[in-house]
Amino acid sequence: MPRTVHVAVVGAGSADAATLQLAENVGRLLASAGALVVCGGLGGVMEAVCRGAKTAGGTTLGILPGLDRDEANAWVDVAIPTGFGEARNALVVRAADVVIAIGGEYGTLSEIALALKTGKPVVGIETWELAKKGVPASGIVRVSTAEDAVTRALGLARGEPA
Amino acid sequence: MPRTVHVAVVGAGSADAATLQLAENVGRLLASAGALVVCGGLGGVMEAVCRGAKTAGGTTLGILPGLDRDEANAWVDVAIPTGFGEARNALVVRAADVVIAIGGEYGTLSEIALALKTGKPVVGIETWELAKKGVPASGIVRVSTAEDAVTRALGLARGEPA
Amino acid sequence: MPRTVHVAVVGAGSADAATLQLAENVGRLLASAGALVVCGGLGGVMEAVCRGAKTAGGTTLGILPGLDRDEANAWVDVAIPTGFGEARNALVVRAADVVIAIGGEYGTLSEIALALKTGKPVVGIETWELAKKGVPASGIVRVSTAEDAVTRALGLARGEPA
Amino acid sequence: MPRTVHVAVVGAGSADAATLQLAENVGRLLASAGALVVCGGLGGVMEAVCRGAKTAGGTTLGILPGLDRDEANAWVDVAIPTGFGEARNALVVRAADVVIAIGGEYGTLSEIALALKTGKPVVGIETWELAKKGVPASGIVRVSTAEDAVTRALGLARGEPA
Repeated sequence: MPRTVHVAVVGAGSADAATLQLAENVGRLLASAGALVVCGGLGGVMEAVCRGAKTAGGTTLGILPGLDRDEANAWVDVAIPTGFGEARNALVVRAADVVIAIGGEYGTLSEIALALKTGKPVVGIETWELAKKGVPASGIVRVSTAEDAVTRALGLARGEPA
Repeated sequence: MPRTVHVAVVGAGSADAATLQLAENVGRLLASAGALVVCGGLGGVMEAVCRGAKTAGGTTLGILPGLDRDEANAWVDVAIPTGFGEARNALVVRAADVVIAIGGEYGTLSEIALALKTGKPVVGIETWELAKKGVPASGIVRVSTAEDAVTRALGLARGEPA
Repeated sequence: MPRTVHVAVVGAGSADAATLQLAENVGRLLASAGALVVCGGLGGVMEAVCRGAKTAGGTTLGILPGLDRDEANAWVDVAIPTGFGEARNALVVRAADVVIAIGGEYGTLSEIALALKTGKPVVGIETWELAKKGVPASGIVRVSTAEDAVTRALGLARGEPA
Repeated sequence: MPRTVHVAVVGAGSADAATLQLAENVGRLLASAGALVVCGGLGGVMEAVCRGAKTAGGTTLGILPGLDRDEANAWVDVAIPTGFGEARNALVVRAADVVIAIGGEYGTLSEIALALKTGKPVVGIETWELAKKGVPASGIVRVSTAEDAVTRALGLARGEPA
């Protein structure tokens, strides 16, 4: 049996309509490709990507900051209440083969950083831009559509070069 | 939609044939009752309970000590690699509404203790006996069959008195 | 420079006067022997052992369940707020070379279990009694005085046989 | 007794001589001001800041990624082996009132992000530059000298506005 690819989709707990639509499309495409969606389990981008995945028949995993499984959004299949607060972001990253960042605030930035720190590929859509001494960092594979995000993420998960 | 009950089944990574059969029966009965099985994801009792659950069409969640999803046994549907070693035992307990302990060594004892510390019910079959100053502690609901373990665990998860 | 021995002293957040006196004596003797005291940082046995250690000029480390350093008792030198709740018990154990358990409830039991699971010695005074199928477990080195607890703990930390 | 300010100093495990000198100066100035230095406990910037703090008579706390206290650099007074890998970065941030970032790689970026996510002030010297859609983010208080870093960090810890 081929190994199911796990893709973490990270983004803010609230976002504008265009970003949510993007996240939903990413979720739908990931599920259609047979990937499992991992996320932080709450609202906003996390909810949108789960909704997309479920409408395409996929499986969703929510790794929650709190202790109550009921804080998961309605589209999470398996909810893991950690009680670790934002420290659970490390677990979201560890649960995945590759990370897709959509927009996002500082929590998303921590997930991008933890992934890159541990050599896990990150695909970004309209997300954080990083630089040191004015020189942009090359860690995030930047794309602009849901289709490209999913194609690149699945390729990177298979070991294709960034 | 009724909330799916999550039951952690904890026990040793290696066990005798009778204990493994007991664990498999517990897994099968939990899945038949619609419960999701949570465990530490490795071998022994963890593998047996997952095998039982899957043969009855259930869903299994393995919260792993290491960083590699592939260390999960073959019957785990969703594997969470934590990298936390035995500290992941707290997450196994937090992911569940009730804990069933089958036999077990010190790791199992830590899960029993963490559950009781946080007010989560524990059902035990041939597991640790606890006492203070010669007086047995009453925390663990002791049963002797897989059927009783599952019936009591599901009752406790619904809020029935111990 | 010789390595400072780190000794975790674990016990309940509230305890009777005799137990608190015992804990204070253990703290005083550990500090007099040059050991650093690690604990969960709160009240009861944790506070008494820190008070004893500080009155003998020692150093105390409190690994807290919450996020606020101010929840540490007044005798903690260095407080680590983890926000992990009872999951921080694994960190208390990991910070130490040896564990002394004094009385205690389920939190203490989890620390005993996590220590023994990872091969770390545990010395117990009037603490949990463990058995399987009626046969007492041999993991805890049982003593009855503060002096014996400290002597055995420091010996075990140096690698002496249990 | 006034509360001791805890300042996390975060930066890379290896760095050029100028960055290490900067970190050592920051450590010295923090200790002179009575602050406790928290860090990840390893080499590079972590070691330099501890060395600076110790030469000025301060106290240093190292929250380690591994399980072995001996992986701490020689200037760490109290070493906490977490075994959590880069997930310990959340604990470094939680242990502090304010964070000073010096240069740094992705691990440092995760600490900056986790601090800002939880409303903890971050002072940066020659560290990551963050932007969204070309607009620089304002989260990091940027300074260029060790003196300014320490003055601003201690002010922010006292509640002065950024």
